[in-house]
Amino acid sequence: MKLALLIAAVDQTIGGVLVFGDRGTGKSTAVRALAALLPPMRVIAGCPYACAPEKPAGLCDVCRGGGKRHRAALVPVPVVDLPLGATEDRVVGALDIERALAQGVKAFEPGLLARAHRGFLYIDEVNLLEDHIVDLLLDVAASGENVVEREGLSIRHPARFVLVGSGNPEEGELRPQLLDRFGLSVEVATPTDLPTRVEVVRRRDAFERDPAGFAAAWAPEEAKLRRRIVAARRRLDDTTVPDAVIEQAARLCLSLGTDGLRGELTLVRAARAFAAFEGERVVAAPHLRRVAPPALRHRLRRNVLDETVATTRVERAIAEVFGA
Amino acid sequence: MKLALLIAAVDQTIGGVLVFGDRGTGKSTAVRALAALLPPMRVIAGCPYACAPEKPAGLCDVCRGGGKRHRAALVPVPVVDLPLGATEDRVVGALDIERALAQGVKAFEPGLLARAHRGFLYIDEVNLLEDHIVDLLLDVAASGENVVEREGLSIRHPARFVLVGSGNPEEGELRPQLLDRFGLSVEVATPTDLPTRVEVVRRRDAFERDPAGFAAAWAPEEAKLRRRIVAARRRLDDTTVPDAVIEQAARLCLSLGTDGLRGELTLVRAARAFAAFEGERVVAAPHLRRVAPPALRHRLRRNVLDETVATTRVERAIAEVFGA
Amino acid sequence: MKLALLIAAVDQTIGGVLVFGDRGTGKSTAVRALAALLPPMRVIAGCPYACAPEKPAGLCDVCRGGGKRHRAALVPVPVVDLPLGATEDRVVGALDIERALAQGVKAFEPGLLARAHRGFLYIDEVNLLEDHIVDLLLDVAASGENVVEREGLSIRHPARFVLVGSGNPEEGELRPQLLDRFGLSVEVATPTDLPTRVEVVRRRDAFERDPAGFAAAWAPEEAKLRRRIVAARRRLDDTTVPDAVIEQAARLCLSLGTDGLRGELTLVRAARAFAAFEGERVVAAPHLRRVAPPALRHRLRRNVLDETVATTRVERAIAEVFGA
Amino acid sequence: MKLALLIAAVDQTIGGVLVFGDRGTGKSTAVRALAALLPPMRVIAGCPYACAPEKPAGLCDVCRGGGKRHRAALVPVPVVDLPLGATEDRVVGALDIERALAQGVKAFEPGLLARAHRGFLYIDEVNLLEDHIVDLLLDVAASGENVVEREGLSIRHPARFVLVGSGNPEEGELRPQLLDRFGLSVEVATPTDLPTRVEVVRRRDAFERDPAGFAAAWAPEEAKLRRRIVAARRRLDDTTVPDAVIEQAARLCLSLGTDGLRGELTLVRAARAFAAFEGERVVAAPHLRRVAPPALRHRLRRNVLDETVATTRVERAIAEVFGA
Amino acid sequence: MKLALLIAAVDQTIGGVLVFGDRGTGKSTAVRALAALLPPMRVIAGCPYACAPEKPAGLCDVCRGGGKRHRAALVPVPVVDLPLGATEDRVVGALDIERALAQGVKAFEPGLLARAHRGFLYIDEVNLLEDHIVDLLLDVAASGENVVEREGLSIRHPARFVLVGSGNPEEGELRPQLLDRFGLSVEVATPTDLPTRVEVVRRRDAFERDPAGFAAAWAPEEAKLRRRIVAARRRLDDTTVPDAVIEQAARLCLSLGTDGLRGELTLVRAARAFAAFEGERVVAAPHLRRVAPPALRHRLRRNVLDETVATTRVERAIAEVFGA
Amino acid sequence: MKLALLIAAVDQTIGGVLVFGDRGTGKSTAVRALAALLPPMRVIAGCPYACAPEKPAGLCDVCRGGGKRHRAALVPVPVVDLPLGATEDRVVGALDIERALAQGVKAFEPGLLARAHRGFLYIDEVNLLEDHIVDLLLDVAASGENVVEREGLSIRHPARFVLVGSGNPEEGELRPQLLDRFGLSVEVATPTDLPTRVEVVRRRDAFERDPAGFAAAWAPEEAKLRRRIVAARRRLDDTTVPDAVIEQAARLCLSLGTDGLRGELTLVRAARAFAAFEGERVVAAPHLRRVAPPALRHRLRRNVLDETVATTRVERAIAEVFGA
Repeated sequence: MKLALLIAAVDQTIGGVLVFGDRGTGKSTAVRALAALLPPMRVIAGCPYACAPEKPAGLCDVCRGGGKRHRAALVPVPVVDLPLGATEDRVVGALDIERALAQGVKAFEPGLLARAHRGFLYIDEVNLLEDHIVDLLLDVAASGENVVEREGLSIRHPARFVLVGSGNPEEGELRPQLLDRFGLSVEVATPTDLPTRVEVVRRRDAFERDPAGFAAAWAPEEAKLRRRIVAARRRLDDTTVPDAVIEQAARLCLSLGTDGLRGELTLVRAARAFAAFEGERVVAAPHLRRVAPPALRHRLRRNVLDETVATTRVERAIAEVFGA
Repeated sequence: MKLALLIAAVDQTIGGVLVFGDRGTGKSTAVRALAALLPPMRVIAGCPYACAPEKPAGLCDVCRGGGKRHRAALVPVPVVDLPLGATEDRVVGALDIERALAQGVKAFEPGLLARAHRGFLYIDEVNLLEDHIVDLLLDVAASGENVVEREGLSIRHPARFVLVGSGNPEEGELRPQLLDRFGLSVEVATPTDLPTRVEVVRRRDAFERDPAGFAAAWAPEEAKLRRRIVAARRRLDDTTVPDAVIEQAARLCLSLGTDGLRGELTLVRAARAFAAFEGERVVAAPHLRRVAPPALRHRLRRNVLDETVATTRVERAIAEVFGA
Repeated sequence: MKLALLIAAVDQTIGGVLVFGDRGTGKSTAVRALAALLPPMRVIAGCPYACAPEKPAGLCDVCRGGGKRHRAALVPVPVVDLPLGATEDRVVGALDIERALAQGVKAFEPGLLARAHRGFLYIDEVNLLEDHIVDLLLDVAASGENVVEREGLSIRHPARFVLVGSGNPEEGELRPQLLDRFGLSVEVATPTDLPTRVEVVRRRDAFERDPAGFAAAWAPEEAKLRRRIVAARRRLDDTTVPDAVIEQAARLCLSLGTDGLRGELTLVRAARAFAAFEGERVVAAPHLRRVAPPALRHRLRRNVLDETVATTRVERAIAEVFGA
Repeated sequence: MKLALLIAAVDQTIGGVLVFGDRGTGKSTAVRALAALLPPMRVIAGCPYACAPEKPAGLCDVCRGGGKRHRAALVPVPVVDLPLGATEDRVVGALDIERALAQGVKAFEPGLLARAHRGFLYIDEVNLLEDHIVDLLLDVAASGENVVEREGLSIRHPARFVLVGSGNPEEGELRPQLLDRFGLSVEVATPTDLPTRVEVVRRRDAFERDPAGFAAAWAPEEAKLRRRIVAARRRLDDTTVPDAVIEQAARLCLSLGTDGLRGELTLVRAARAFAAFEGERVVAAPHLRRVAPPALRHRLRRNVLDETVATTRVERAIAEVFGA
Repeated sequence: MKLALLIAAVDQTIGGVLVFGDRGTGKSTAVRALAALLPPMRVIAGCPYACAPEKPAGLCDVCRGGGKRHRAALVPVPVVDLPLGATEDRVVGALDIERALAQGVKAFEPGLLARAHRGFLYIDEVNLLEDHIVDLLLDVAASGENVVEREGLSIRHPARFVLVGSGNPEEGELRPQLLDRFGLSVEVATPTDLPTRVEVVRRRDAFERDPAGFAAAWAPEEAKLRRRIVAARRRLDDTTVPDAVIEQAARLCLSLGTDGLRGELTLVRAARAFAAFEGERVVAAPHLRRVAPPALRHRLRRNVLDETVATTRVERAIAEVFGA
Repeated sequence: MKLALLIAAVDQTIGGVLVFGDRGTGKSTAVRALAALLPPMRVIAGCPYACAPEKPAGLCDVCRGGGKRHRAALVPVPVVDLPLGATEDRVVGALDIERALAQGVKAFEPGLLARAHRGFLYIDEVNLLEDHIVDLLLDVAASGENVVEREGLSIRHPARFVLVGSGNPEEGELRPQLLDRFGLSVEVATPTDLPTRVEVVRRRDAFERDPAGFAAAWAPEEAKLRRRIVAARRRLDDTTVPDAVIEQAARLCLSLGTDGLRGELTLVRAARAFAAFEGERVVAAPHLRRVAPPALRHRLRRNVLDETVATTRVERAIAEVFGA
């Protein structure tokens, strides 16, 4: 899970991370911790969509209109929780009733998608989310824009975010399209050997009894990570992917029979982000090999039950392409 | 996909384009790019339905009423996105609540159908659209008019547009009527040979990392295309279809057993548009042959799975009619 | 289709016309063209239900109340479209919200049924209409009255109209009761021989490219038709049906096993209207024979698929009764 | 149908009449004609529930409250149509929104059940009525009271009426409880011999072309009927049912295995009403025999299809009890 | 049915009475008659929940708050009808809209549960009641409190009542939990021997023709009953149940395999109430034996159809425990 | 049930208690009695979420904002009933309509989750609760936070409580996830031997006839319990769990094949709470053994029917791990 989140932190266009496994607060905490690691982002002061002042092409209607100069501000990277009971009006935004009643104007009140722009949107139990909310999310995640046509409103604003979802296949079916939409998937499994279990139980018990103390122990490692992520982001644009690596990625996908080209594209980007994180300027086979399982495993799952089969097939394909 | 969109650009009455294949921004971008190519259209200034001043027969009630002279204005060809969460009131239009509350009058607030008039209506994932919205769209697409009888309103306005829909048969069934309604269908498939895949991945990666640079490379080709489309539109009315060509079209349809005459009509018009685009004044067999696959393939599909069978059957019928 | 519409134009009590076949504007255009042919009708000026001044028995509550003399006015025969998205309040009428809010009175705002009174109600794709709207229509069509008991309103007004519906059995099942309710049914089929197909495609292409030119060619024939319809209407009351003809009608229905007497009654009336249209004063066997297929075919259809079987059975019964 | 309606007219507590057979206006017309025959009824002037001044025990809350003397008025016997689209608020009554908004008081606006009190409630196509409306009707019909607990209202008023329903078993299942609730059932069948069919078609055609003339022919017979009904009503309380007749009724029901005692009670009352109509003061076997089919046939119907079987079984039981 | 209602009248905590059998007014009349028999109850004047002044522990929030002394008042025991169409807001109570709009305060308007407190709640056709209303009733019946958490209200008030329900298993399934919740069940069956049927029909006919005369005949018996009930209630607290009787009750239940201890508790209480009614101070085996069938029969019904089997099994268990 | 509630009282993070068995007031009374035992809790005066002044890290937004010093107050531990009819707005909280209308501000009105914070949330018949309410509860119970995104509100407040649910598997299926979420489960079974049954019936009858007298008998035992709980809570943080015990817990779970680590964590915590309650500072095997059945039995239930099998399997695993 850590690798997948780091890759998403380095390259936010990677397409989201899906975490299989148990419900709980651990994952939410991990995402929040990661966001806290990231350097604050520059936004246009007062912009409801946190537009980046350095990208004039992607400005929202508010920032684009009006000839005035924008002042920049620094804000923390947002981590937005999308709770299960969230209503569509809160997700996509809606008519601002307060202003409508008080001032008689039809103003738009941005929703969670607007708030998550340039940050993370976290959904615990994404498989329990209502289908029409899922469809909305996929639509926006694919286009990077939130198009609102409801209640007499006609709004369009940028909404690019790293979608982090946790799902437990036993609690509700995961639609193939949903799976395919996530860039990376990781599985948080319960260890089955006794000593590890005892160790994990001991640590979680310790953490839950004294979270502050636990956190303090992590501080130095956190500072180191932040520096590596910032460096990796800066290095990302200059990190090249040799054709041989792209070819290996394509071979892997051909061998596994994944649909479309999303598999290759994710592999290439994840490998580049990983290479940048590792301090390299050229992506090499080991980078690709390392990111292949999280980038591919969920793409061939036709049957929810063959989790192990999926992992085995990916591993076999890796062995084929890279040599055992 | 390019051919189909160009034909629809030359003759907007062709009946829409359906694109099978993967969800994504590529198609939306392509439609938008095409619309940007088209010359701006003349409208009656202030008309909420963008009436054409040169066609007095098709004017809306607003433009028809009142003896005053109309002033013309030039506006870009509209491309309207119909998002999945769109509510019926936004699609067909609805009571203007703001004016109802403020001024106490029952005014109509035009919807997406009005906005798309004379342009493009783009629906990503048309197969996920709710059935009653689809029925409304088909009704309006067939009649060229939007008839609204709701909330005490009784409105009728022209609504002619090129419907561009993308669909992924795996994500939701496509109703036969829906298929039949589209003039042309194209399939965007993933290449299966390694070199092409590598090339496509490389290009898409390049595009996504630097869209502006990518666009600049296309500019000259765009200008050439625009000139050809404008010329083809002007030439369209004078392009004749010999009876022999109509007969070939009918033979193709008889051989494939398509329902009704929509197949023939679409074939004839698409061939004429294509001929006009090619600079010809008389439609010939090669034009017909070229447009036959996109115009016919989706009309014989009974079973969603026999995609390849459909293509094969169309090709066999073409071979029969034109000789191999 | 032309014969059926003409019969309905001569005798509006014939019970509606159902057109099987393809969706499209052709049928709507045909109905509208027919209505345009009919002479304008006399109404009581200001009556919201277009009451006929010459029939004091059938007046609405508004016209009946108040001792004042009515002024007559001439208005065109209405053709009302009932779109698929029509809400119940617009179909049957509803509380006039505007007046309720502004003046605090509970006034009735008549709906489409009121507007169609004495004219035509056209429903494209009648089989896609929601069941409860269909039930309402059948109720009103059977009683000739619209009884509204909703939102605190208690209104009753006359609503007699020729229901014209188009249906495509493949797009949605047709309920037997719905079939039975229509007086006449016609089927618009696609021709299967090559020369006819080519001819039809050529004509439709011509029409769609230049509707005005096409219409001009029809003008003389239209004038002739209008004169014949007006004459037939005047002649209708004096056209007698000999008992032998009624007996033939009854024999036909007995032989086909149609339910109730609706078959006979429709046969007799359609034959009388047809005879009157042909300029006769006495109905004869050929008139009956001519109208038997549209009046009976849809009454024996148990199974939507045996369209051809239905036609064959009607033809065999005709041969039996009239001699081959 | 005539016999059943007459019996219900003589003794309104008979429990309603259910008419099987075709939809149409004939039945509604028959009920209305019957009500027109009945002498006007005495009501307390101004009472919203048409209370009878001569029955102090059954007064509504409005009439009971206030010590003032009631003035009597004469009003025609009501015939209330319950249309299929009727909403629950109109059936049972509801908050009077107009008074609530204007005067700020919670007043009750009586519904169709109140309006039908002491008269007839006519439901065309009772089997298409929504289940919850049917349940409400049965509840009220059984208790003779309408108890309203909704929208903050808590009202109870008398509601006794003759329920006349028409149903077509082919258009929707008839629930056994619904069948059982009706006192009498009749079946209006289509004649199957040619001469009768011809005659009926001729008459209905005549009636529909000239209703007024048709009605005039019925006037004398109507006056005679009215006198007989009025006399029968006066005679009803003094008409005795010998124990032997009750025993025969019980035997019939035992033999047919009807549930409960509703069969016997209806038989006894219908026989008494019929005897009174025939001018007798003592009910005899022939009266019972005459009313047995309409009173019993629908009580043994388990299977909608065995219509003929039901009739045969009743006839066989009659033969058993009375001797062939 | 009489025995069961009398037991419930003597000890209101017995848990309600369920009457199987035919719909009709008889049962409602019986319950109302019983309530009329009961002496009026002392309530705190003005309390919306009819709190008993002698029980300070069970007072509602209104009565408990404010140091003022309560004045007592005498009111008749309430019998509240819960009609099928009752909405949840009327059953549990709701926001008082009138006061909310007029005075701007969020006041609670008590519902039927509040009105039935300390009396009877009568539901005709309890098996047709909507499930969520049934769940609410069971919840309140089990806890003796109505907890309202809706529309911004947060109210809790005592609601103890004798639930009397009538049900017809043929009209709708009875959920096992619903059966189990009722303390006693009785079955009103149609007699099957001819003389009894004739007698019952004669009496019901007499009653329905002259209810007042019928009632007068019952007056002396009513006065006697009232005295016995009042005496039994006074005696109830001092009536002891010997351990041998409790043991017999437990044996009966063990033998029949009823779930939980509800069977025993109901048996013991019903036997005590019956003994008190009979004027005894010590419960004996015959009392238990008499109340066993109504207290147990519905508790072993797994299959709705084995009504007779249930009765037989209870009788066999009684014979086992008490000796034949 | 007593043991489980005591453990939850000593360590509120144990994850709730699920009680299988009969509906009734006993359980609710037990929970309420337990809460009455607990010492009052310190809260920040005026805080709508009952924040603890000694934990600055867990403060709500209201308490965190504003630099002012907090005053502490003592309030009883809340026991909140969640009735079946509770609407989502009351559970999670909603817009305060009163303030919205009166003052025009969007204020949040906390719901039952806020009220239950730091106390108990009791749900009778948790298996009859609507699914979306259950999902909300599980979400909040897992995260300890209530995130509200609805009606234009965006609120987040702490919500930690001991969930006590009663369920009857026969009345409605228990979802596996729901089972898994509860820390401990107990089963309240009906005794099957005669003497115990007689004793229990005698006691319950006594309690229901004189609750006050019954309560008085419990007072001394209550005081003793309260002292033990308070002492156990104080001791809890210093009670250590030897690795050998954690290993035994892990072995138990491995042997039973429970999912995730929730089994071990609950076992460890429950054993620590139990040891603290018993006055020990070091957890030992017997503590673990005692809490194993309530902590594990519901975690292996795949099939609702194998209740006894579940108990047997847990016992066998205990015997294996600890030796018989």
